[in-house]
Amino acid sequence: MGLTLTEKILSKAAGRQVSPGDVTEITVDLAAFHDLTGHHVVEVMENIGAVKVWDLDRFVIAFDHLAPPPNDRAAEIQVKLRKFAKSINVRNFHDVGDGILHQLLLEKYALPGQVVMAADSHTTTVGAVGAFAQGMGASDMAAILMTGKTWLMIPEPFLIRLINEPAPGVYGKDVALHILSVFKAEGLNGKSVELQVEKPKAFPMDYRATVSNMGVEFGADAAIFIPDEETVSYLSRSRGINVKPITPDPDAKYVDEYTIELNKLEPLVAAPHSVDNVKPVSEVEGIEVDYVFIGSCTNGRLSDLEAAARILKNGKVKARCIVIPASRDLFTKALDAGYVETLTKAGCVVTYGTCGPCLGGHFGVIGPGETAVSTGSRNFKGRMGSPEGKVYLANAATAAATALEGRLTDPRKYL
Amino acid sequence: MGLTLTEKILSKAAGRQVSPGDVTEITVDLAAFHDLTGHHVVEVMENIGAVKVWDLDRFVIAFDHLAPPPNDRAAEIQVKLRKFAKSINVRNFHDVGDGILHQLLLEKYALPGQVVMAADSHTTTVGAVGAFAQGMGASDMAAILMTGKTWLMIPEPFLIRLINEPAPGVYGKDVALHILSVFKAEGLNGKSVELQVEKPKAFPMDYRATVSNMGVEFGADAAIFIPDEETVSYLSRSRGINVKPITPDPDAKYVDEYTIELNKLEPLVAAPHSVDNVKPVSEVEGIEVDYVFIGSCTNGRLSDLEAAARILKNGKVKARCIVIPASRDLFTKALDAGYVETLTKAGCVVTYGTCGPCLGGHFGVIGPGETAVSTGSRNFKGRMGSPEGKVYLANAATAAATALEGRLTDPRKYL
Repeated sequence: MGLTLTEKILSKAAGRQVSPGDVTEITVDLAAFHDLTGHHVVEVMENIGAVKVWDLDRFVIAFDHLAPPPNDRAAEIQVKLRKFAKSINVRNFHDVGDGILHQLLLEKYALPGQVVMAADSHTTTVGAVGAFAQGMGASDMAAILMTGKTWLMIPEPFLIRLINEPAPGVYGKDVALHILSVFKAEGLNGKSVELQVEKPKAFPMDYRATVSNMGVEFGADAAIFIPDEETVSYLSRSRGINVKPITPDPDAKYVDEYTIELNKLEPLVAAPHSVDNVKPVSEVEGIEVDYVFIGSCTNGRLSDLEAAARILKNGKVKARCIVIPASRDLFTKALDAGYVETLTKAGCVVTYGTCGPCLGGHFGVIGPGETAVSTGSRNFKGRMGSPEGKVYLANAATAAATALEGRLTDPRKYL
Repeated sequence: MGLTLTEKILSKAAGRQVSPGDVTEITVDLAAFHDLTGHHVVEVMENIGAVKVWDLDRFVIAFDHLAPPPNDRAAEIQVKLRKFAKSINVRNFHDVGDGILHQLLLEKYALPGQVVMAADSHTTTVGAVGAFAQGMGASDMAAILMTGKTWLMIPEPFLIRLINEPAPGVYGKDVALHILSVFKAEGLNGKSVELQVEKPKAFPMDYRATVSNMGVEFGADAAIFIPDEETVSYLSRSRGINVKPITPDPDAKYVDEYTIELNKLEPLVAAPHSVDNVKPVSEVEGIEVDYVFIGSCTNGRLSDLEAAARILKNGKVKARCIVIPASRDLFTKALDAGYVETLTKAGCVVTYGTCGPCLGGHFGVIGPGETAVSTGSRNFKGRMGSPEGKVYLANAATAAATALEGRLTDPRKYL
């Protein structure tokens, strides 16, 4: 019987053929943490008395959640982590401003067929390039750093097919929200979701990263795009490397499968206070909005900025708008493309490489009674600041159209 | 006997001729507050039961200290102040991202000969255009907003002459630091410092704003540049208005005077932990620096960004560097001039219109044991974050050269 991509990746990592339900030890190809989780990981290693990393070429640190440090405690954590990094000569170290960890893993490190484990739930993001990528807690992460290994129960493979081309105004975010509307939050718990794209060029890497990123929102252990010509092209144009990616066998067996007709989707939102409270944007049009956030590891990529700039070149924002490309590299590309200028002249605040607003951490926290539209990943009560605020999750075009009009707006009127 | 500029401005505001030492009521031409002080001002008015503003054309609000809001409390304060602004139809309202209050007053509102009172100590900044500008506490500010009047003891006028042209690597900051080195912090308490520039074009508005800004550091009630052709030119090119500024009488009497030969200055720093612990940068060269901040109401203007970009086009920063133009308008100009691109590609983090790092508030707070170079206004223990950190104040060129080398560096080697 043929193997799924998940089985192929994890069998290689286990050194033997594994099947769903097996509990097994696997080797890890790439491990990472950021500032907020990293200091817990280091604490665990300190408590064990073994502050070390099995393979410095396979380890990445990025400061993003607390970058730039919003308070004394955050600065102290970063000081501690810089000392740790220096003490063991960490090579892949990204200080304040380089970018959000998941984006950096996507830009520079993760490869198809790898096992990627990082101390953050949205590690699923790099499933976009065909890696089995999963978030880990501090203790597991410490063990991985010390040994290069971890254990897991092999998840059940679940296939999602994306067929046809996205309808106008539909992006990766709408696919993620559609999956959430069907399967609900945690509906795919214990599954390794493999996504197969019928028309690879019509669903580019940025869109894939959004879907894989939100894989954890629908409960998946991993959300892996089966590598195709877009994967190969992305890795070639962004990193100049040629990969011959592994794919599932034609007769691979999935626990279940589901097909999404991209041409039949429309722009969606997740209304307060749950990621699976999904509605078409047309149903919530007109709701007054105070604040719009465009950015994050979910939707802070070039296609998001392009979509926002295309809409916001039409005028000035009526709702406050903060735009944060997910990395310095993306900010630079947005500069070169003129998006930063367009967004700034429209009245947005632009910076880069911080998670701040998405998690209500800093640089744009919502107040009581405020309604926000965010391109981020979560909208539970208090996620973005005051528990008396409301957050709608949307794609970048919806967010930009909403900023322009000061109320929830279907972006298709600007296409 | 002739009158000083201070006497002329305050006599007009008092409606009678006043002299130093007089305690008198004066009318206010322009009043303002920001988010951090504004909510105290509104609280005072609420407690009095008279939430009103005497003249909405003469009142400005800007969100800067808590912009974008770094925590729930900050967001709550801004929500409250937006409600206040809406309730009385505040016209000159600058929400998150427009810019730092003092820069906005300079760009859009303050005029020569005006009395400007705002709820922040660095209100002295707009002395640069020839206004008598002073910071006020919340209770005084509330009274000003309700009545358009305040009272003060007429300060003693003190004349500082700036002669010749600045030596290479010398900017407004070095003049402010030189004054601090001679007179010490609070050394000019109770004085209204009038600054007379011999060669107006050689000491442009940006430099003047830095000196007036730090006027409060040497204790002056106000630090007023006597309007000249640069003042007229600045107001014409930046706002399209023509002013015929008042100047002191030729035989005006000052309590004392002091002359600075600009061509004899060199780049200076204020070493930890006091603004008047001033040394030539050459004396502190080589000290390792972790973090550089270029921005603030003191030094976040176009000439600062230009000086930084000219140096940082030479490579990548070795110390973390955050750059924050003081307003969206300045950021836009820096974009157009290519400075944002240069600074970003050199590895700086760039955003705009927040006071964050300067006061250790957010977006770049220093940690224990860290050494920072800042173009801001203050360096007392804990000002920029951890009380176990150290801050050197410097001009933007010194800051940029230091970022490039990772240690305190005389900028003249890059000129």
